[in-house]
Amino acid sequence: MSRQQIPVLMREAGLDALVAFSMENVYYCAGTMLLTQRMIPTRLAMTVWQADGTATMIVCGIEVAQVRAETWIKDVRTYVEFKDSPLVELAKLLKEKGLERGRIGLENKYLAAAYYRELAAQLPQATLVDGDDIFETARMIKSPEEVELLRKAAAMTDKAIRHAFESAHLGTTEQAMSDSMGKDILRDGADGVAFVVMTTGENSKLVHPMPSTTPIRANDVVRTDFGGHYGSYFGGYYSDIARTAVAGKPTDKQRDAYKNLFEVHDLILRSVKPGVRACDLFELCRKEFERRKVDFHSPHIGHNMGVFIHEKPMLNPQTTIELQPGMVLAIEPIHVQDGFIYHIEDELVVTPTGHDLLTPAYDWAELLTIS
Amino acid sequence: MSRQQIPVLMREAGLDALVAFSMENVYYCAGTMLLTQRMIPTRLAMTVWQADGTATMIVCGIEVAQVRAETWIKDVRTYVEFKDSPLVELAKLLKEKGLERGRIGLENKYLAAAYYRELAAQLPQATLVDGDDIFETARMIKSPEEVELLRKAAAMTDKAIRHAFESAHLGTTEQAMSDSMGKDILRDGADGVAFVVMTTGENSKLVHPMPSTTPIRANDVVRTDFGGHYGSYFGGYYSDIARTAVAGKPTDKQRDAYKNLFEVHDLILRSVKPGVRACDLFELCRKEFERRKVDFHSPHIGHNMGVFIHEKPMLNPQTTIELQPGMVLAIEPIHVQDGFIYHIEDELVVTPTGHDLLTPAYDWAELLTIS
Repeated sequence: MSRQQIPVLMREAGLDALVAFSMENVYYCAGTMLLTQRMIPTRLAMTVWQADGTATMIVCGIEVAQVRAETWIKDVRTYVEFKDSPLVELAKLLKEKGLERGRIGLENKYLAAAYYRELAAQLPQATLVDGDDIFETARMIKSPEEVELLRKAAAMTDKAIRHAFESAHLGTTEQAMSDSMGKDILRDGADGVAFVVMTTGENSKLVHPMPSTTPIRANDVVRTDFGGHYGSYFGGYYSDIARTAVAGKPTDKQRDAYKNLFEVHDLILRSVKPGVRACDLFELCRKEFERRKVDFHSPHIGHNMGVFIHEKPMLNPQTTIELQPGMVLAIEPIHVQDGFIYHIEDELVVTPTGHDLLTPAYDWAELLTIS
Repeated sequence: MSRQQIPVLMREAGLDALVAFSMENVYYCAGTMLLTQRMIPTRLAMTVWQADGTATMIVCGIEVAQVRAETWIKDVRTYVEFKDSPLVELAKLLKEKGLERGRIGLENKYLAAAYYRELAAQLPQATLVDGDDIFETARMIKSPEEVELLRKAAAMTDKAIRHAFESAHLGTTEQAMSDSMGKDILRDGADGVAFVVMTTGENSKLVHPMPSTTPIRANDVVRTDFGGHYGSYFGGYYSDIARTAVAGKPTDKQRDAYKNLFEVHDLILRSVKPGVRACDLFELCRKEFERRKVDFHSPHIGHNMGVFIHEKPMLNPQTTIELQPGMVLAIEPIHVQDGFIYHIEDELVVTPTGHDLLTPAYDWAELLTIS
């Protein structure tokens, strides 16, 4: 699917207009990403779809030259910051389009309550409804171009992690490893590091701490969860891969922990194909950990991904969506032993007959040791 | 002022509770910054203040170990993602505190409309009001510790820019200059590059494009607007400085453009002291450009800054707030000549008797040339 599908989904949902407000959905719809949507959240930018496929943008006048240079949308309206209200401009646009009594979908999981209220006051006769689901549904299935971008991103991220782990030794710090990974992906074409968890020792009990100057010591669990972004230097499409190693000679308990995790992970990977439900994969994982008498408490074991790091479907017990070709999934079971987190995360694209692994999971079948 | 002032402001506003939802205000209130608040916006985290100064956090269970390790807040509640609603947990907490009929301030310029609605349904007898202003007011005045952090950040950012401009020559690319600046601030202690505008040639007509491989050519206007963040590797406190140079031998028109801009900038700097209103500084700038018969169309000429890059007061025509000691202002008049943007931005802290410049503006009194 792609943004071209949005008007089709709008017609199915009976919407006359649909408005994107988040940086990610504006980027997805309009192909332009504004730094200030992240840095200055009060400076609203919007993409307004109509059911016939017409799209219009409303952006702050300060940003308009960049927007016009980047977007495929011809009709770009502006407002003067502080003087004009972007919500009043949106209401004006909808009235101009004859939609003051229309059914208008909004990104209500992003649009702030204060702005929603301002818009509602401007459009007393319109029906304002949640439009998030349409963006989420369109984004579920990646186009071939999106898959290629995500494939390249995953490959360079995995390579950077492998390089950092293979170059590490006792005494290497978390920061040295995270710097190495960041440099590698930037050299290979990433536009930025989106997030980097790189832990050793006691820090491996925390899920998302900052890399520190803690050095690797014998018997540490060394873990990373790392992703870059591609498309803009502050966002775009993401990579998301996790790996775990042990320093020195692993204990039997550490070997078992990793072996259990990898085998569960492998079982999930081998089960990915169209028609399997998100919750089925979760249940498979839960049961397999149970069979192995291993504690399991994760609220999810993976997710679709794209311009958001977590996209629908989440692989959790609540989600009954069936896997479909073109979903790019991150599969990430977690095993916690004595408080230490073991984490393996691979990316794959669902294909008509099964899936295509974007990261070489089987390079990590054996527990890597750092000495 | 500081976060300790929040309960005082709450009592003045007659609030029983006040809830922060944004990554920035949760960080300001609780001293912990969660990567997932940026990366996974549906995974809500909150700081809940009561009027007696008691504070409670509600975070996703996945993040709780890090939060407990970082925050001063003793009472940290958790929810299980997908299974529990964080808004239901918030309503439960407020009921437990006897506030189901209370007056509750919310960060309504951040809290999404869908979540607001869910909370309102859980608290039908409560009065939910906009609480943004209390955070904005508390954050206006920086504590001595915040000023010192911002001072160091500004100094290293300015030094990195100066180094990149003085090392540049004809043929140096935008990316080479932005990489140089990024490396310098990371080496000196920044936790990340927040944003980097680095333009030459035609790109200097755009406000916030990405650095490209465009090389500097003779007579180009070369401009940067650059900031790091300090405190966390994906946020914290910001620096924000802009500089403009010309490549080769500047034309008289270019010299005049820069001279006009610097003299207006200098006039504004010399006028900064407690009691002056934000709009007075704007008006001074507007009139001085008018006197010089130079076009002026900026919606603002600067801003307070801290955990957001733009904080109250904005230096715009609408803001009548008086400057007060402890505000850290970025002063940034812009002059556009033949479409090319000339931009000078310095940071200062307002003191009881005037101000203290955090960046050596006068090093840039003469137009810098790159050859």
